[in-house]
Amino acid sequence: MHVLIIGAAGMIGRKLTQRLARDGAINGKAIAELTLTDVIEPTAPNGFAGKVNLDRSDLSNAGIATALIAKRPDVIFNLAAVVSGEAEADFEKGYRINLDGGRMLFEAIRLEHQKDGYCPRLVFCSSLAVFGSPFPKRIGDEFLTAPLTSYGTQKAILELLLADYSRRGFFDGISIRLPTICIRPGKPNAAASGFFSNILREPLVGQEAILPVADTVRHWFASPRSAVQFLVHGASIDLSGLGVRRNLIMPGLSATVAEEIEALRSFAGEKAVALIKRVPDDRIIRIVDGWAEDYEPDLALSLGFRAESSFSEIIRAHVEDELEGKPA
Amino acid sequence: MHVLIIGAAGMIGRKLTQRLARDGAINGKAIAELTLTDVIEPTAPNGFAGKVNLDRSDLSNAGIATALIAKRPDVIFNLAAVVSGEAEADFEKGYRINLDGGRMLFEAIRLEHQKDGYCPRLVFCSSLAVFGSPFPKRIGDEFLTAPLTSYGTQKAILELLLADYSRRGFFDGISIRLPTICIRPGKPNAAASGFFSNILREPLVGQEAILPVADTVRHWFASPRSAVQFLVHGASIDLSGLGVRRNLIMPGLSATVAEEIEALRSFAGEKAVALIKRVPDDRIIRIVDGWAEDYEPDLALSLGFRAESSFSEIIRAHVEDELEGKPA
Repeated sequence: MHVLIIGAAGMIGRKLTQRLARDGAINGKAIAELTLTDVIEPTAPNGFAGKVNLDRSDLSNAGIATALIAKRPDVIFNLAAVVSGEAEADFEKGYRINLDGGRMLFEAIRLEHQKDGYCPRLVFCSSLAVFGSPFPKRIGDEFLTAPLTSYGTQKAILELLLADYSRRGFFDGISIRLPTICIRPGKPNAAASGFFSNILREPLVGQEAILPVADTVRHWFASPRSAVQFLVHGASIDLSGLGVRRNLIMPGLSATVAEEIEALRSFAGEKAVALIKRVPDDRIIRIVDGWAEDYEPDLALSLGFRAESSFSEIIRAHVEDELEGKPA
Repeated sequence: MHVLIIGAAGMIGRKLTQRLARDGAINGKAIAELTLTDVIEPTAPNGFAGKVNLDRSDLSNAGIATALIAKRPDVIFNLAAVVSGEAEADFEKGYRINLDGGRMLFEAIRLEHQKDGYCPRLVFCSSLAVFGSPFPKRIGDEFLTAPLTSYGTQKAILELLLADYSRRGFFDGISIRLPTICIRPGKPNAAASGFFSNILREPLVGQEAILPVADTVRHWFASPRSAVQFLVHGASIDLSGLGVRRNLIMPGLSATVAEEIEALRSFAGEKAVALIKRVPDDRIIRIVDGWAEDYEPDLALSLGFRAESSFSEIIRAHVEDELEGKPA
């Protein structure tokens, strides 16, 4: 089997690559070839016996999608995107990369399909940013997509295209709407949601972190490990019963900042909790106030998608995957 | 004020043109200039004192949208579309006309906006085909768009773009999701929904009509007169309170075929009803079975949109508008 990962150099892309290299198979079928592409050069995984193709290219440039699809990958992961803040700041770039790039991929597959019925599995990394407030208490699978950002709009449009191209039989697609990933590895970044990870990741290694919102803020989380598992599961399961409803809210943990802090206390003690500095930030408070708190991902649950059920699990996943099992 | 109607040669486009010519104004502002465009040559309205520009062009061709927008229309109606059956039969044509054509219009407005803040009102003719079964008993404003056709997908995508472009301030847009138009004037056509109109329109002039489904079939209707009123109202009202929720289910009448027939009986007697021939058609029964029966258009009602409340009103509108008040 040939697997193509577009956006392979990003955080999730690298973890997905490493997971597939380790497994050596998807759903029992051996992976013979792995093509990794991104706008920055992807890294070859460790310990993979098959062929690896590394490609540096921009999906939204003419001919790129056609060349990638000409090699007939059996499974395609599309994780490529300009992030929310950049898509908001640069309207044209966001639409070009997030909408046109994705559509060019879909079109390249359709044109290959027309030759002989080629029909790959396509796993698209979508986002809960397809939703916009006002929200019900819990957002279910039948809630409208009314995004409040251009990024969310671009994701929602690709979801609609994915459903129509799948209905037509051009490919067999699924959209994975990821929860907020926590604990995000790496350094604190400028994303408004960064603090959810910062207040755990930094204290776990003896560093201070800033909490800009109240302890009562509730949000929807899954670990990077779960995010990768969602993508692999999306590539593995039978989708034939879904019809056009292929854009799935992924399971997650609905929890408050206070619950995050309690889990940190249980795992690393009072000393770690003391490293969280409360510095209210009106800008971030306002942004976070517009985010949904809870979801009812019934369809994904019925298909066997699973996330963590406590922040203790999320912390353990981070310590095992990022800190070799040993926090500071 | 300069008004642009794209798709002016279609049934609704012609009626809208005539209505605007008759009113001579939108929301109290005089219409000085009317630009009518379509892929077939539009007809100039009767009795309009202002300037009329007739244009035959395809919005999806390069440069067309730019040229139309360079003339800075204050109000733009976009009614141009390949119909559902054609968009399903010809995938590329449907996406080119219904999606790319509409997006080129939006882009042309955005680029004009960037020069000096130009920000027209844009009224987009959308469709309830953005929804797909399974449905709740009544579809409300927060129900997901999961279209079962490429046509519905194209409309849903333009709706998302319209909301984002409006949020950005490039134009002030509204999508009007029309009910099934009944009584559709003209000759019986091949559309699966044609019988809803045929069984009234034909008997009203002494002609036979075929009813391919059961009397218990329930559906959502508004007259052509109401459809035009929705568009004019959409061009007139303040939309600033809507945020991104600008894609509105229009009010309609939820009624059964039996209620249609009863209204015909009241208006034109048993002789007219006897002209309806019951010829069940499995293909049409199956298609109609996938359509929604009822809606809760709360948002549109709160903005003052109104439709007929009985089939007697719908028949009267037809007799007044199409038969000069005199049925056969």
